[in-house]
Amino acid sequence: MADINNISLNTATTKLKWSLSQAIDGCARHEIAGISPWRDQIQEMGLHAAAKHIRDAGLRVSGVCRGGMFTLPHGHDRQAMLDDNKRAVDEAAELNADCLVLVVGGIPDGGATLADAHTQVSDAIAELLPYARSANVPLAIEPLHPMYAADRACVNSIAHANDLCDELDDGLGIAVDVYHLWWDHNLKAEIARAGKERILAFHICDWLKVTSDMLLDRGMMGDGVIDIPLVRSWVEEQGFDGLYEVEIFSQDNWWQRDPDDVLSIIKQRVAEAV
Amino acid sequence: MADINNISLNTATTKLKWSLSQAIDGCARHEIAGISPWRDQIQEMGLHAAAKHIRDAGLRVSGVCRGGMFTLPHGHDRQAMLDDNKRAVDEAAELNADCLVLVVGGIPDGGATLADAHTQVSDAIAELLPYARSANVPLAIEPLHPMYAADRACVNSIAHANDLCDELDDGLGIAVDVYHLWWDHNLKAEIARAGKERILAFHICDWLKVTSDMLLDRGMMGDGVIDIPLVRSWVEEQGFDGLYEVEIFSQDNWWQRDPDDVLSIIKQRVAEAV
Repeated sequence: MADINNISLNTATTKLKWSLSQAIDGCARHEIAGISPWRDQIQEMGLHAAAKHIRDAGLRVSGVCRGGMFTLPHGHDRQAMLDDNKRAVDEAAELNADCLVLVVGGIPDGGATLADAHTQVSDAIAELLPYARSANVPLAIEPLHPMYAADRACVNSIAHANDLCDELDDGLGIAVDVYHLWWDHNLKAEIARAGKERILAFHICDWLKVTSDMLLDRGMMGDGVIDIPLVRSWVEEQGFDGLYEVEIFSQDNWWQRDPDDVLSIIKQRVAEAV
Repeated sequence: MADINNISLNTATTKLKWSLSQAIDGCARHEIAGISPWRDQIQEMGLHAAAKHIRDAGLRVSGVCRGGMFTLPHGHDRQAMLDDNKRAVDEAAELNADCLVLVVGGIPDGGATLADAHTQVSDAIAELLPYARSANVPLAIEPLHPMYAADRACVNSIAHANDLCDELDDGLGIAVDVYHLWWDHNLKAEIARAGKERILAFHICDWLKVTSDMLLDRGMMGDGVIDIPLVRSWVEEQGFDGLYEVEIFSQDNWWQRDPDDVLSIIKQRVAEAV
């Protein structure tokens, strides 16, 4: 079974009710080993204060969410996008994060095609990588579910992420999120292809059979259809020894609850359903 | 450019306002070459009457929607499901359809996993195939978008459909629907892998960048982000010479319009954006 000492809280799970500071304290209170903060919350708290608070609480940072958004309409300021990604690398370095998660961006407005977007993603990662390598921050491409291909991320399978890693090489890996990838009949083989070196993060939640909203209706582990223990076993067979990062976007359910209750339930569900 | 003499109307596009009989007349009136009826409409009209009316109108039947739904909870009557699929084969034969489209079913209730569902699908198709072969009705697996993996169809990539074709052999092919498959970075290669023999249908509509509903908010060709001419070129490079079947689920937009207007716009958009 999954080890409840290996949990990380992605702060999206509690962001409606808790600031980053509160989330850090909550993790310490519930003996949750790690945290994965979002950049807006880091900026709100201040980078140095956040780093100190996380360090003092003894938390591992399983990732920083997020860099990316590489795809831009024609004429848009590309340099500003790259500069912002470099700042994200700096923040991940200061927080000693396991990786900077990349959500690569969708199809830009103005008639761009999927192929155009793919080229922009590949080019931008190639430009960002030397900076990330020199900062010792691994970049984790997060393949998003194909339902986000148009508006959020045009890398939608672990096969595609693996292809990009083949192409762009060292310092680049993958965030394996069961919500985005569970349906893929080649998932086991592609996790093996990624191997220990590339698997930089493991994100969990559940896919509800009746999903009312494409973005904000993720389920708690055990409430949906994903065979999470199976996917975890595939990741761990490769030698992954990072944390299980719990990331639940749930406007009408989990975000409305007392985050202390949510954290208690997360621990219980990791023991039972992960 | 696409040939407007190669259009087929999937009757889901007009089903809110038109019966099957009205849709047949509408196709004839707009010089649309083919039709793809849904089984509930066939039953409502009567199979023999539908076959005669379609024949008299000179329409090609690009497919019958749909067989499948092979995945069942434990203890559910499997024979009834298989019998119903055989009736669907009979209907497709009577209508001289190019294929019977299969929507394979999602994850059954009661704790089944994706792997369980995949096994049920493979087993059921293997049982149905001899019957379909003897009726000369090709079976077309329609890989659905991964967002339907839980509730409608657990075959969610053309790669998976190709694997099933490899496994189960003659008489089995694929319905290539741009809405379900457009995001796949391996789509060109998998269409080539399928080849002329397996590409039994080509379904078109568009993916709206802002999609308000996971099922009922498909776009008209040209209103979304899919590079339809590119996918069409890949299919036609393989020698596909069937019709472009227009299937638009659109509760709040296209279903509310006068179907005669919808058919006029379809012809225009096939000329401009397909």
